[in-house]
Amino acid sequence: MKLYSAINPAPNPRRVRIFLAEKSLSIPIENLSIRDRAHKAPEFKQKNSLGQLPTLELDDGTCISESVAICRYLEALHPAPALLFGASAVESAQVDMWIRRIEFTLMNPIAAVWVHTHPFTARLGTQHKEYGESNRERVASAMHWLDRELGGHEFVGGSKTFTMADIVALTTIDFAKFVGIEMPDDAAHLRAWHARVSARASAAA
Amino acid sequence: MKLYSAINPAPNPRRVRIFLAEKSLSIPIENLSIRDRAHKAPEFKQKNSLGQLPTLELDDGTCISESVAICRYLEALHPAPALLFGASAVESAQVDMWIRRIEFTLMNPIAAVWVHTHPFTARLGTQHKEYGESNRERVASAMHWLDRELGGHEFVGGSKTFTMADIVALTTIDFAKFVGIEMPDDAAHLRAWHARVSARASAAA
Repeated sequence: MKLYSAINPAPNPRRVRIFLAEKSLSIPIENLSIRDRAHKAPEFKQKNSLGQLPTLELDDGTCISESVAICRYLEALHPAPALLFGASAVESAQVDMWIRRIEFTLMNPIAAVWVHTHPFTARLGTQHKEYGESNRERVASAMHWLDRELGGHEFVGGSKTFTMADIVALTTIDFAKFVGIEMPDDAAHLRAWHARVSARASAAA
Repeated sequence: MKLYSAINPAPNPRRVRIFLAEKSLSIPIENLSIRDRAHKAPEFKQKNSLGQLPTLELDDGTCISESVAICRYLEALHPAPALLFGASAVESAQVDMWIRRIEFTLMNPIAAVWVHTHPFTARLGTQHKEYGESNRERVASAMHWLDRELGGHEFVGGSKTFTMADIVALTTIDFAKFVGIEMPDDAAHLRAWHARVSARASAAA
């Protein structure tokens, strides 16, 4: 098994590294240079036709891409020391629901700001700046929503334990900061949650 | 158990109906009027704070939203007559990977065309028309990618059986048609797959 990955600030590769740290798992990792577009090279696109990182290659050559799918696979192989995708059908559905909510409601507008306003992405395609800028308001609204949802809870979705939804939310909030978007000052629950999960050893991944 | 849903052409509620038909499951359904914004009413937002459909309410009041999370929950309760999320760790990861690829690579740009160019959505917010129009090329590119991936395969992702990834892809392609985006003429594999899965009884849902 081998993981094709990329260094920070790429948020999706970091998700898998945090997951591995939480599971005390170690697998061989090869980092490709996103700056040099190594993930778009023909050789790598044989492993992932969309040219995206991370991608997990199994010993028989099967490749699994998408950070959440990779972690879901590793969870099935290694349920101990902690289940990060829930311990029952209801819990698993709720972790999945929250992963999706974070991705569609929070990550999508952050990605739009990144792709359509940031100097680093200007060379990759046409930027629709007015559209990109309009997403800052969507991000703030999503962060306020998440702040309300975190009130009285230790982890995302009211889970009693740290889950994959926390990993997705943490990497998303930290990527937003890289893009130049901070958590709102008045988002006290969100800020407290962020401090809590950032204090875990795995967050250094 | 009760499913809050919406009539066609809403693509996410249809995913769950197709899933239920494939499983030969029947659960009580209450359709809310999206046109009348019933899903944004305070009473419903107590069940789903994002005001989105579908949402599954369990007998103890627990609510699960997100079409894929709802189907994943129902799969855990009812593994027979067919597993639609894979039968092994590798298969499950690949179904999850393909669901995500379809959503991020194909559905996201279709949604952008819908939200930013369509007359039906003009009253819901500022439309960035140039950005919206630019997504037609992304949709065509994604459909051509999916067409190549389907070459020599009966189902999405090379699965030997119909899975949730086919449901997500079918509802996405059909929603694109509603928005006014057809499959490219030269996408023969995609068109053949679409005809195949559309011929299943469940597709009438």
